[in-house]
Amino acid sequence: MKSDLLRDGLGVLNVGPELFVDSVRAAGTPVAHVEWRPAGDGDPKLAWWLAQLAGDPGDPAAPGSRIDRANRAAVERMLAARAVLADVALRADEVWPELWANGRRTLTHAGAPIPWSRMCDPMRGTMIGAALYEGWAKTADEAADRLARGEMTFIPNHDLGAVGPMSGTISPSMPLFVVRNPAAGNTAYCNFSEGIGRVLRFGANGPEVIDRLKWIASVLAPAIKTALAALPEGVDLKAIQSQALLMGDEVHSRNAAASALFHMAIGGALAGSDFDRARARAALEFVAANSQFFLNLSMAASKAIMDAAHGVEHSSIVTAIARNGVTTAIRVSGLGERWFEAPSETPIGLYFPGFGQEDANADLGDSAICETAGYGGQSLAASPALVQLVGGSVAEAIAYTREMYHVTWTRNPVMSLPNLEFAGAPAGIDVRKVLDTGIRPVLTTGIAHRRAGVGQIGAGIVRAPLACFAAALAALAEGLGVA
Amino acid sequence: MKSDLLRDGLGVLNVGPELFVDSVRAAGTPVAHVEWRPAGDGDPKLAWWLAQLAGDPGDPAAPGSRIDRANRAAVERMLAARAVLADVALRADEVWPELWANGRRTLTHAGAPIPWSRMCDPMRGTMIGAALYEGWAKTADEAADRLARGEMTFIPNHDLGAVGPMSGTISPSMPLFVVRNPAAGNTAYCNFSEGIGRVLRFGANGPEVIDRLKWIASVLAPAIKTALAALPEGVDLKAIQSQALLMGDEVHSRNAAASALFHMAIGGALAGSDFDRARARAALEFVAANSQFFLNLSMAASKAIMDAAHGVEHSSIVTAIARNGVTTAIRVSGLGERWFEAPSETPIGLYFPGFGQEDANADLGDSAICETAGYGGQSLAASPALVQLVGGSVAEAIAYTREMYHVTWTRNPVMSLPNLEFAGAPAGIDVRKVLDTGIRPVLTTGIAHRRAGVGQIGAGIVRAPLACFAAALAALAEGLGVA
Repeated sequence: MKSDLLRDGLGVLNVGPELFVDSVRAAGTPVAHVEWRPAGDGDPKLAWWLAQLAGDPGDPAAPGSRIDRANRAAVERMLAARAVLADVALRADEVWPELWANGRRTLTHAGAPIPWSRMCDPMRGTMIGAALYEGWAKTADEAADRLARGEMTFIPNHDLGAVGPMSGTISPSMPLFVVRNPAAGNTAYCNFSEGIGRVLRFGANGPEVIDRLKWIASVLAPAIKTALAALPEGVDLKAIQSQALLMGDEVHSRNAAASALFHMAIGGALAGSDFDRARARAALEFVAANSQFFLNLSMAASKAIMDAAHGVEHSSIVTAIARNGVTTAIRVSGLGERWFEAPSETPIGLYFPGFGQEDANADLGDSAICETAGYGGQSLAASPALVQLVGGSVAEAIAYTREMYHVTWTRNPVMSLPNLEFAGAPAGIDVRKVLDTGIRPVLTTGIAHRRAGVGQIGAGIVRAPLACFAAALAALAEGLGVA
Repeated sequence: MKSDLLRDGLGVLNVGPELFVDSVRAAGTPVAHVEWRPAGDGDPKLAWWLAQLAGDPGDPAAPGSRIDRANRAAVERMLAARAVLADVALRADEVWPELWANGRRTLTHAGAPIPWSRMCDPMRGTMIGAALYEGWAKTADEAADRLARGEMTFIPNHDLGAVGPMSGTISPSMPLFVVRNPAAGNTAYCNFSEGIGRVLRFGANGPEVIDRLKWIASVLAPAIKTALAALPEGVDLKAIQSQALLMGDEVHSRNAAASALFHMAIGGALAGSDFDRARARAALEFVAANSQFFLNLSMAASKAIMDAAHGVEHSSIVTAIARNGVTTAIRVSGLGERWFEAPSETPIGLYFPGFGQEDANADLGDSAICETAGYGGQSLAASPALVQLVGGSVAEAIAYTREMYHVTWTRNPVMSLPNLEFAGAPAGIDVRKVLDTGIRPVLTTGIAHRRAGVGQIGAGIVRAPLACFAAALAALAEGLGVA
């Protein structure tokens, strides 16, 4: 790793503690900080498991270890996956009627399971807003009381094949994007982008938030559904993601090109339909005014791609990274539906005027599904404009992606990164490699205020906690009988 | 210059003959070829004039030379210019009725004036097609006969405040984009993009070409005019150009992002209008299917910007570069409507399968107006994806733009180049600096087959001939009484 980075012409390579980075950088020398820790993070048990797993062929006649063979199969499915926006479900309860059967009041959320008592303030604000939107309470106070008394049930999006940004909440009358992977036959779902400012996903729940949600359900969602009805092939989201990587997006925290490409994919079909003209215009202009509109589609596409790679016995490929605002949790292909959790860190980045790190909530949202599919922090080299937004340089953007090659299984040939001379993006985060190098996956993210409803206060970069990967390695070792 | 480039960390700097470049590059060392010639290209008269002009204050109390002061004023106008798509003229003869008064048959073309006898084959094919489109002949042979007999009049687009890609021809019933610069009150025009393949601008003139032109006039142009009628502010083309530079376009030979942004700017307004639905869909899908659709808009915007900088007495800023397929010609702000011409070179780049350099026409089209405004070759650093298309590397893309800083007046603060850590693009090509350094402006370009109608056979890079600048310097020296 060290020699790779030096060969790439960086002026200074800093390994280990970040102590010297700022002073070297201040002197004007290009510098990349590389995370490095001893294998297994200095824990002899982890180091022992890594060694045992590397030498575990299972079938002595087959090449590689059992994990290697499983990972090859998982990543093949990931690379073969497609992601097509096939439809819009106008109500979530059409898709999952069981969640709201017999008067049950269910709300979904980002990340691993979490009770009301442990939820961060933005997520609580979101739950209150969703209850108001559904008419389950008349006031925010009443909604909070009912939520605290346990009158509503919570379920992680991921348990439903779904994802949602920030709090990520889906309630029964919200519309959903329906994204299919025809290669494996699986389907993923995501809620709709509300735009920026005071929005439900950051915990705002005032009348303007509820009104916008109603407009999304009654105008925007039917408009896009109407356009899709006139597009028999649907909209190829994976192709849009690939194009957008050539256009300065990493399709997690920057989606300016992808949103425009999506607008272009549906605009003609909607204009040609018999949908109400004023509403068609309003729908298209809502998409046009929101450069992050595509984020929810990128997330659903990434979920469709990574669900295809999930469930390969013994595979150590990470198929989900998700944050509920308190913990960051990962799922691993060969380890079923288990979450491996650790406390979330607070993102480092640039804050809007008047806000600072002390105002930030811990990392939040299902959007890190993008990183598991190779977008976002994995493809930061694609997005100098994003790195500038979070306070970094182009050289740093490139260095982040180079680092990620050390924790991933292969390069994705359909995800070209111009600034790496069109090399494929890192593909398939391997739990073993993360622990072997101590390099934690980089996530790009919006930063939420710790108080509900204030909204986004900045954008930055955060790393997934190493403890998630250590716990997953323990489970892998146990599953293979080497623990 | 030499030290700047070395400071930028290039492995090898080659000055002068390109002899060694290929072997050094083959050895894997990053290398930038820098054009370098002695001041005035070794011509003692040019060198003398450069020295005299540098020391010519005119008013001894004012700082700088007379040319410096004029250039400052010209570039200020260029930077202050805006470029707004305000309208579509459904017929060119609404805009310039005099060209077709009293049965006169006028056709416009790219570049400096040229008679039928000297036109390249693609431009002749275009003229034949335009005559067929206007019903001035029934067959291509009849059209060619009438053209050869002098029954039609030719006029350069630039003489009309207009521009057109490749042959660039406008005939009376063709629609035009109308682009206004409210800062100076000037207006620029461009014809419509036909898409790729067999198209009039490359000299094709068969029935499918004529049918497409009729569809553009009867469906596409009215559709965009209708959308603009619902957008009181028009569409801010300069803002789209700036955004697109952050998205991998240099908005000359790559317009993938700009075309999508333009689609997004008009899609809602068209969908909300009472324009026929099927035609609205067809119009939007035509734009969506043509990633170079924005080129014609980028050209008109660049023309509106550079016309604002034209006509400043003594200014040596280049306000137009245009090629008629035989010569490359420049106009200079302080030198009126004169063209300074020299034989065009053949672009160097990548050819489509089955074609090679020997099939290429000499450089053709008004599109180099983009370079005078700082786009295209000047901003190649913005567009790694384009450089790959023409056979280069990201390092070369960056090196081209760095080179262009040596022949330009300043940096444009609203044209950020991500790969140069968001530095402003080179702005204002200065005739003196071109001759002082021997660095010729780089143009990105499509490559036309030398036979009419074959169409585009590749894409590449070409430089404007030094002789154009030498002739302009002579005129500047004469005007200032130092010749």
